[in-house]
Amino acid sequence: MTTQKFVTLQPTGDKLPLVGFGTARISKEDTEQVVYNAIMAGNRLIDGALAYVNEAEVGKGVRRAIADGIVKREELFIVGKLWNSFHEKQHVKPIFQMTLDNYGLDYIDLYLVHLPFAIEYVDPKGPFGLTNAKNELKLIKAPMHETWRELEALVDAGLIRNIGISNFNVQLTLDLLSYARIPPSVLEIEHHPYLQQRRLIKWVRSQGVQVIAYASFGNAVFEAVPQGTEHLKNLLEHPVIVDIAEKYQLSTGQVLLVWAISHQVVVIPKTVNVSRMKSNLDINHIRLDDDDQQKIDALEANARFNDFYANNYGFDFPIYD
Amino acid sequence: MTTQKFVTLQPTGDKLPLVGFGTARISKEDTEQVVYNAIMAGNRLIDGALAYVNEAEVGKGVRRAIADGIVKREELFIVGKLWNSFHEKQHVKPIFQMTLDNYGLDYIDLYLVHLPFAIEYVDPKGPFGLTNAKNELKLIKAPMHETWRELEALVDAGLIRNIGISNFNVQLTLDLLSYARIPPSVLEIEHHPYLQQRRLIKWVRSQGVQVIAYASFGNAVFEAVPQGTEHLKNLLEHPVIVDIAEKYQLSTGQVLLVWAISHQVVVIPKTVNVSRMKSNLDINHIRLDDDDQQKIDALEANARFNDFYANNYGFDFPIYD
Repeated sequence: MTTQKFVTLQPTGDKLPLVGFGTARISKEDTEQVVYNAIMAGNRLIDGALAYVNEAEVGKGVRRAIADGIVKREELFIVGKLWNSFHEKQHVKPIFQMTLDNYGLDYIDLYLVHLPFAIEYVDPKGPFGLTNAKNELKLIKAPMHETWRELEALVDAGLIRNIGISNFNVQLTLDLLSYARIPPSVLEIEHHPYLQQRRLIKWVRSQGVQVIAYASFGNAVFEAVPQGTEHLKNLLEHPVIVDIAEKYQLSTGQVLLVWAISHQVVVIPKTVNVSRMKSNLDINHIRLDDDDQQKIDALEANARFNDFYANNYGFDFPIYD
Repeated sequence: MTTQKFVTLQPTGDKLPLVGFGTARISKEDTEQVVYNAIMAGNRLIDGALAYVNEAEVGKGVRRAIADGIVKREELFIVGKLWNSFHEKQHVKPIFQMTLDNYGLDYIDLYLVHLPFAIEYVDPKGPFGLTNAKNELKLIKAPMHETWRELEALVDAGLIRNIGISNFNVQLTLDLLSYARIPPSVLEIEHHPYLQQRRLIKWVRSQGVQVIAYASFGNAVFEAVPQGTEHLKNLLEHPVIVDIAEKYQLSTGQVLLVWAISHQVVVIPKTVNVSRMKSNLDINHIRLDDDDQQKIDALEANARFNDFYANNYGFDFPIYD
């Protein structure tokens, strides 16, 4: 494994590894061992969320790795996320405490607002869907400035080192920056060659906010095929990516990760495969030639796969419009 | 002139004509007479803004039309807009009072937040650019929930009948709806066949917010040609629009307006030409066949002309990303 590289989070000076590990869509049964393996492979950034329904198992994997002396707590960067059902100010602290208990840690490194809207409260034990038992999306009134104030209080209490946002756009981020006493350290967004969000990324970076990419492999990681994206090849098999992979003797996944971190975007690929855990991390020494980087840039298709389209959800909720 | 049709604003029950008159980019010298002519031609909705730098002249035209008995005040629907330099809570009431004084009226029917971001305070006499004397965009911290509270107080005081927003996207609108004691009646946005914003419109409508279109003629009304839109024909000369215009014996401008109001979007075309003022209003009885309406729907290009691109402004400020 090559030496990890880091970016510095502006509000706190904390170091965030350029390559981390995502825990969405790992089964409850597998999660503890997978997270343990991921840390063993060299991962130090672990991105989790209450809504992934495997937080307790992530915590077990993390604690076992610490107990076994593989890593020290302070070498890890642990991420959690506030689910939409708990934006109301009275719910933020209790649900965060649940996450902290799930992880079994004294503090976490980063806590993100998972999505920029609030839905009705549900049993914290989950499941955490967007719709209730009647299959309805029930939006509630929970102003972001009130939610954010609660997160700031958790920072003040020493329970969270950094707070941040996920799936926010420029307008809402701008408003947040106007009232945030503690500014967001991170914005986590869908990001891959088919959805590069260059203007957004450049702007939030100018505001001191670091971008973390999710879904770095694009449509390869989504079952749903939104209308208008049917023509887009599986990114992991795209000829441009395949050719570059061959040229540099990399996997196509590695190429996509190298491309992203070359844009100073932190990546958090998920895999349950130990050799891929290692190869995903083994990219910090690689730099693509400018023309190869640009060939990937040219794949921009403004294609968002993780949106609430009627054809997948039964309701259309255009939070990116 | 055909009978006007109206939509009802949900928060107040006020009636808004489907076709109104815009006052941007009319010279100070021409404005009084143009607005007078517009009312004479049958316009009842007059859309103005402090930033158009002709508010006082709009007011003169409106008051002369009332004084001459062409229209009664209560038959008119007068719109004003809060400029970005005055979002801080201490500036909202004074700058609104200036608009009210410019118009010379006791109240206005609708006051919109012109753009969803705040810049540093400038002399209320203007000019009202986005950049200061040093050509810098100077964002300031003025939370939208504080600005909105001031607008609500102006409604309470009887000085504004409806408040609304302009150039807001779904995320910021959603947050606004969470803290608004008086909800927005209207969202005014760029809207034409090249930028139809269908998901956004459907969603804000579901929240009780009426959409007003600006720039209904698309790239025909902008000098700037944003990158990626160079291939788009002038909408007023587009073969699809020209063919439909010939079929129905309309001008191409009328076709674009009919298309929009058929989607229940209010339009506010600007013209200084009296016969076009009349023809723009003379569309309420026209309905395009479904297949013609769909031919125009098919022109969607996701092309936004009114954005703050580096090539026009010297800075890139992606408020729609």
